Amino acid sequence: MNRPNRPKPTLMPSREQGIALFTDLYELTMLQAYRELGLAEREAVFSLFVRRLPPERNFLIACGLDRLLGELEALRFGPGDIEYLAAQSFKPDFLDWLAAFRFTGTVHALPEGTPFFANEPVLEVIAPIGAAQLIETLAINRVGFETIIASKAARVVEAAAGRPVIDFGGRRAQGHDAAVEGARAAFVGGAAATSNVLAGRLYGIPVAGTMAHSFVQAFTDEMEAFRAFARIYPDTTLLVDTYDTVEGVRKVIALAREMGAAFRVHAVRLDSGDLLALSKEARRLLDEAGLATVQIFASGGLDERKIAGLMVAGAPIDGFGVGTDMMVSADAPAVDIVYKLTEFAGEGRMKLSAQKRTLPGRKQVFRTTIDGTAEGDMIARYGEPLPGEPLLAPVMRDGVRLEPSPPLAAVQARARAEIARLPRALRALEPAAEPYPVAISPALQEYEAEVREKIAARNVQPKA
Amino acid sequence: MNRPNRPKPTLMPSREQGIALFTDLYELTMLQAYRELGLAEREAVFSLFVRRLPPERNFLIACGLDRLLGELEALRFGPGDIEYLAAQSFKPDFLDWLAAFRFTGTVHALPEGTPFFANEPVLEVIAPIGAAQLIETLAINRVGFETIIASKAARVVEAAAGRPVIDFGGRRAQGHDAAVEGARAAFVGGAAATSNVLAGRLYGIPVAGTMAHSFVQAFTDEMEAFRAFARIYPDTTLLVDTYDTVEGVRKVIALAREMGAAFRVHAVRLDSGDLLALSKEARRLLDEAGLATVQIFASGGLDERKIAGLMVAGAPIDGFGVGTDMMVSADAPAVDIVYKLTEFAGEGRMKLSAQKRTLPGRKQVFRTTIDGTAEGDMIARYGEPLPGEPLLAPVMRDGVRLEPSPPLAAVQARARAEIARLPRALRALEPAAEPYPVAISPALQEYEAEVREKIAARNVQPKA
Repeated sequence: MNRPNRPKPTLMPSREQGIALFTDLYELTMLQAYRELGLAEREAVFSLFVRRLPPERNFLIACGLDRLLGELEALRFGPGDIEYLAAQSFKPDFLDWLAAFRFTGTVHALPEGTPFFANEPVLEVIAPIGAAQLIETLAINRVGFETIIASKAARVVEAAAGRPVIDFGGRRAQGHDAAVEGARAAFVGGAAATSNVLAGRLYGIPVAGTMAHSFVQAFTDEMEAFRAFARIYPDTTLLVDTYDTVEGVRKVIALAREMGAAFRVHAVRLDSGDLLALSKEARRLLDEAGLATVQIFASGGLDERKIAGLMVAGAPIDGFGVGTDMMVSADAPAVDIVYKLTEFAGEGRMKLSAQKRTLPGRKQVFRTTIDGTAEGDMIARYGEPLPGEPLLAPVMRDGVRLEPSPPLAAVQARARAEIARLPRALRALEPAAEPYPVAISPALQEYEAEVREKIAARNVQPKA
Repeated sequence: MNRPNRPKPTLMPSREQGIALFTDLYELTMLQAYRELGLAEREAVFSLFVRRLPPERNFLIACGLDRLLGELEALRFGPGDIEYLAAQSFKPDFLDWLAAFRFTGTVHALPEGTPFFANEPVLEVIAPIGAAQLIETLAINRVGFETIIASKAARVVEAAAGRPVIDFGGRRAQGHDAAVEGARAAFVGGAAATSNVLAGRLYGIPVAGTMAHSFVQAFTDEMEAFRAFARIYPDTTLLVDTYDTVEGVRKVIALAREMGAAFRVHAVRLDSGDLLALSKEARRLLDEAGLATVQIFASGGLDERKIAGLMVAGAPIDGFGVGTDMMVSADAPAVDIVYKLTEFAGEGRMKLSAQKRTLPGRKQVFRTTIDGTAEGDMIARYGEPLPGEPLLAPVMRDGVRLEPSPPLAAVQARARAEIARLPRALRALEPAAEPYPVAISPALQEYEAEVREKIAARNVQPKA
């Protein structure tokens, strides 16, 4: 049932409808105040970045930009939205302004599929402060979630060491939006396919899936279920663990004898029990029966550590279905991703809170490479001429996307290539002994000190 | 900006569009096979239940039924869906059948807000096997996710010991669907309000929120920002930790002196640092300045344990904003929730896998109470006349909801009352020393043994 990437269909309802209200109330409260104070149209720069990598991540993979940009282009307050806000005591003049609101900002961003590190801007929004503020919730949500899943999937794919990983996680995802966008993000992170049909339709991701235990249970005996299914889908995968896995494999072998040349079953799937022992036994039985081409596919509570363990132990498994743990990024279901004002009315801005560093002003990130391996990044002021590859690129100007989104397969390929460029220790599942070097350019450090001093002088009394 | 529950607005686009494809490919593959084999219309019973509670949960709160039922009523395959499935090699006859498909099943369920335990059916679907199978992914996703969040929120609310808890988690939720449905579920679990405007509109949940650090940063000095904001929103909450929390509180006090009788600021919000020390210092300063009515609101990386710690230590905090940890249920971002065939063509069905028990047939759960406290549950065969309160109730018959959804405030009240009925040890944040007693009725045990024996006889050869 797998198919290569196909273009997006056109008949889906617009998923952007209603998205303008996907914001925190304080964004609107502040926006109304900015307008009353005559500040709403003054230019601001906001920076989206991750404060700290989760303990078990050596890097993150940027993802979620595509949908965000589409939503920014489509963002409108509909009549029902305005009516609701009127009932929340917002003022008529402000509501009229909202009804006519369009996002007209400029966005620079890391291309989807780019590995990045703590404190590096994933995107920068340059826009009137009202508009830039309004999209905070949406921007954090979109980029944060897909980034988490793409990053988790990259670990699972790394562990599978070349065997295909299929996303089975839709049912345990946190809502259907998470299932669909998560399937996309997992594909970017290297998954080969998804079981989620809606994600397949929306993003052209190959879809996969054959049978559940219930199909086997619906028959009086398992053999009968296999026989019926293989007649309808000759090249299918048969699920063999409903009653007894080894017995199930024996029935597949019996079916092969029964069907002779017509037997084309592609694989058996193990979904419970000791996957190492069972895969070895299944392989042995299949090989002895001359069914060396029948593959073994495993699923059931898998994550990158279990898969790595199976691979190290030499489990003869040809592919993995990974569900819950990948689709909710169970060991790191959220990251500390924030969207902070860094410049307003031409002046650098920052908080002074300890442990919550915000680098002021517009920025660029340069990645330097030696012999094909990334050796370090430098966060710099925008416009600094530094060596290395600049990672942030303009993706939207005055509210209009500069380029259509690249095909998803190209994003996946970019992620794969960029991950391959990272130092080997970073690609391991374990935390790297030395984190990837991310420096701050002298000019940016100087600017940070200057802004800090200026703000502190105005806002904090010297301690006695 | 808080408002009481309001009826759902009518202008939102239908969120059910496109939901038919939110399924795993194998559901459709099996369904096509059932049709070819003439089995698709034979009646099946599927049971949705949680195999194991997460380690840190003494109970779960049923949630997510309302949206699921609405989606089951509206479920249709549109022309674009059919076109996509045609490209996936499904057969024309099956696609015609799908195009005309309506869900016509019967559903029994725990009312939303009901605490439940491992192995208890949360809902049972009685429908032609094709239809019942098709909705597996949707049913698990909807009920699983909202249940997780309502259950987590109940812990946070318990920890806050009567202080209001406000959901701030939309930005870090796993997608916007998770943010909106999560806000609903958190409200069911006892949250007082949400910052998420879309959730406010869709579900009539009170919305809350005033200012972010960026507003303060947009001004040359903090005092100026407070002055401007309090002029526009006299009864607002001022965020005081942008530069130095204690200084921030002092500025609020200065503002009170400056404004005199016009000063009506409701609260200060602390969002970083040592919340215990800072709240005590803020309280002391405010009280000394005669501002005892100005409340202290705290946020920033909170979860139920941190809140409980603050309460035990006597932090003078009047309310909590809780974001990420509650909205992704960080310590248990998924539960082992499954949807299993338990009866087909009039016969009980089950898997035989060890540690994956499925209780066969249709069931009911009885909860017995002594002196107002629930003392145990009994899972029974459907129709058994047992003492106690039967928990599963019919909610949909032949594809039609039997009653409109109760107002969300009523669901919240039910959850509160039902949680209050649980033994005290279960309501603690720590795992209860003794889990809540859930028994299986003798008749159901007998039936289980009978079904097991029959299935084993047909499917598993006796071990040598």
